[in-house]
Amino acid sequence: MGDDVAAVPRGKGKLILKVDMLVEHTDVPPGMTYRLAARKSVAMCVSDFAAKGVRPDSFMVSLGLKRGATQAQVYELSSGFRDAVREWGVHMVGGDTNEASELVIDCAMAGFAEGLVSRRGARAGDILVTSGAFGYPPAGLKILGGKAKAAAGFAAKARTSVLKPTPNLRVGLALAPFLTSAMDSSDGLSRSVHTLARESGVGFEVRNLPVGIGVPEFARANNLDVEKLVLDGGEEYLIVGTVRKSRIAEARAAALRAGGTLMDIGVATPDRDIVVLRRGKGVTPIEDSGWTHLRRG
Amino acid sequence: MGDDVAAVPRGKGKLILKVDMLVEHTDVPPGMTYRLAARKSVAMCVSDFAAKGVRPDSFMVSLGLKRGATQAQVYELSSGFRDAVREWGVHMVGGDTNEASELVIDCAMAGFAEGLVSRRGARAGDILVTSGAFGYPPAGLKILGGKAKAAAGFAAKARTSVLKPTPNLRVGLALAPFLTSAMDSSDGLSRSVHTLARESGVGFEVRNLPVGIGVPEFARANNLDVEKLVLDGGEEYLIVGTVRKSRIAEARAAALRAGGTLMDIGVATPDRDIVVLRRGKGVTPIEDSGWTHLRRG
Repeated sequence: MGDDVAAVPRGKGKLILKVDMLVEHTDVPPGMTYRLAARKSVAMCVSDFAAKGVRPDSFMVSLGLKRGATQAQVYELSSGFRDAVREWGVHMVGGDTNEASELVIDCAMAGFAEGLVSRRGARAGDILVTSGAFGYPPAGLKILGGKAKAAAGFAAKARTSVLKPTPNLRVGLALAPFLTSAMDSSDGLSRSVHTLARESGVGFEVRNLPVGIGVPEFARANNLDVEKLVLDGGEEYLIVGTVRKSRIAEARAAALRAGGTLMDIGVATPDRDIVVLRRGKGVTPIEDSGWTHLRRG
Repeated sequence: MGDDVAAVPRGKGKLILKVDMLVEHTDVPPGMTYRLAARKSVAMCVSDFAAKGVRPDSFMVSLGLKRGATQAQVYELSSGFRDAVREWGVHMVGGDTNEASELVIDCAMAGFAEGLVSRRGARAGDILVTSGAFGYPPAGLKILGGKAKAAAGFAAKARTSVLKPTPNLRVGLALAPFLTSAMDSSDGLSRSVHTLARESGVGFEVRNLPVGIGVPEFARANNLDVEKLVLDGGEEYLIVGTVRKSRIAEARAAALRAGGTLMDIGVATPDRDIVVLRRGKGVTPIEDSGWTHLRRG
């Protein structure tokens, strides 16, 4: 445990395994069809492989279908898995079908690697980077739930970020040689940064929040906190990681060549487990308030 | 698809993958604790590896826990996974935890093999074999549900067969070199025999039903059909397969050395897809009425 994926030694390399379960009432927002849900269940695994710099080879799915599920719904799910196969070049090699009281899709993904980017390699002085900007999915969730309004262009982008999460596998594979630590951001930016800090034994000073275009205007119009949207949203499926200062230009060029981007958002510090946001001359702590599935009473 | 496990080519060998989902309301009978449910979820995968003659290496689990799940329940689940680790010598390498509306445990298992026993190799004249006797789990389910009565000794054995299903991995590995086709019997004996017939392009004549000790008395006392209990029960986690006639003595010796047994229950015939039960001079068809999760309206 303790990392996004499991690595099983095999000969000179490693078998990389990941399971991720999508559950209807927590992971399927209003407006997400069965086809999109099936695609998302695979995207959730691809995102972890991308952050670890490992090309996924194959996946299997276990389905829990509601009693009375129709052939049309099963067909929709198949279409979503086919979308994922095409989009990320992975093979669907099997599955299991069951009856459950809500839609459950568990994706198990496998790949092979010589090594992978861990959560534990960040050192003080490394640059904190992300593979994109944050805030669209939490905005999209509110828009889909009818709890916020937005201009048409922003609303479309925000909704799509929720309904069609698109981890960038090419960028993950291109960045891997430069990352000293990394993980995916599906549980939110603050959770990712805190996790990297804890696992690597460093702290982080965030200097430039990676705020998505239009997110500040959306926050203002709906009386929401833009920093909270960016830090604690979740479901971004981006990469959060660290790069040695000396290699940052190379890393950025590699991300660009792969069709992505690399945002420099801060720096690793020797202050173990301390994560702060710089505002001018002062700093304020960033809470580890990432999104989590399991809420206990 | 089309077999109990998936085989992904890898170098000179194959990566073998299997997912199996346990869902509370269909797979967890009265009397099954969380610890036993966790153990069973792994047993379901081990059973398929055993039938394919492949040693499992590692597994991961995705958990769906009910809101309000207690630490004690989570601890119970961990104990059950540890039981499985000890019992079958597999490594637990990771997992994922979610909130769901009922307990869901999806086990994803991986192993490596040069080859595996398929469902497609039976030829007319091969001996139809099982790695044990049938009828205990359906009896146990009725006893646990308070719908049938039995003598204490039989009741204990029947209940245990349900609560603690124990695929025999050692026997599976020992039998593999002799099996021309095989699959596990978790969906019932009739379903397994029909599946091997269909996939291999043969028929089967069952000559000796593998009736568990005490099952006929149990059936009589509860006004149940003993043949139905044996053929259509399901959840037996035994191996159903075929062996060349010339190798049956060797196969039986190998099963015995591994601590198991091998029952000769019939013969493969050239009558494609025809599965019959011989009764004296006549035969009657055996229906493919195996147990299935997904019932549609």
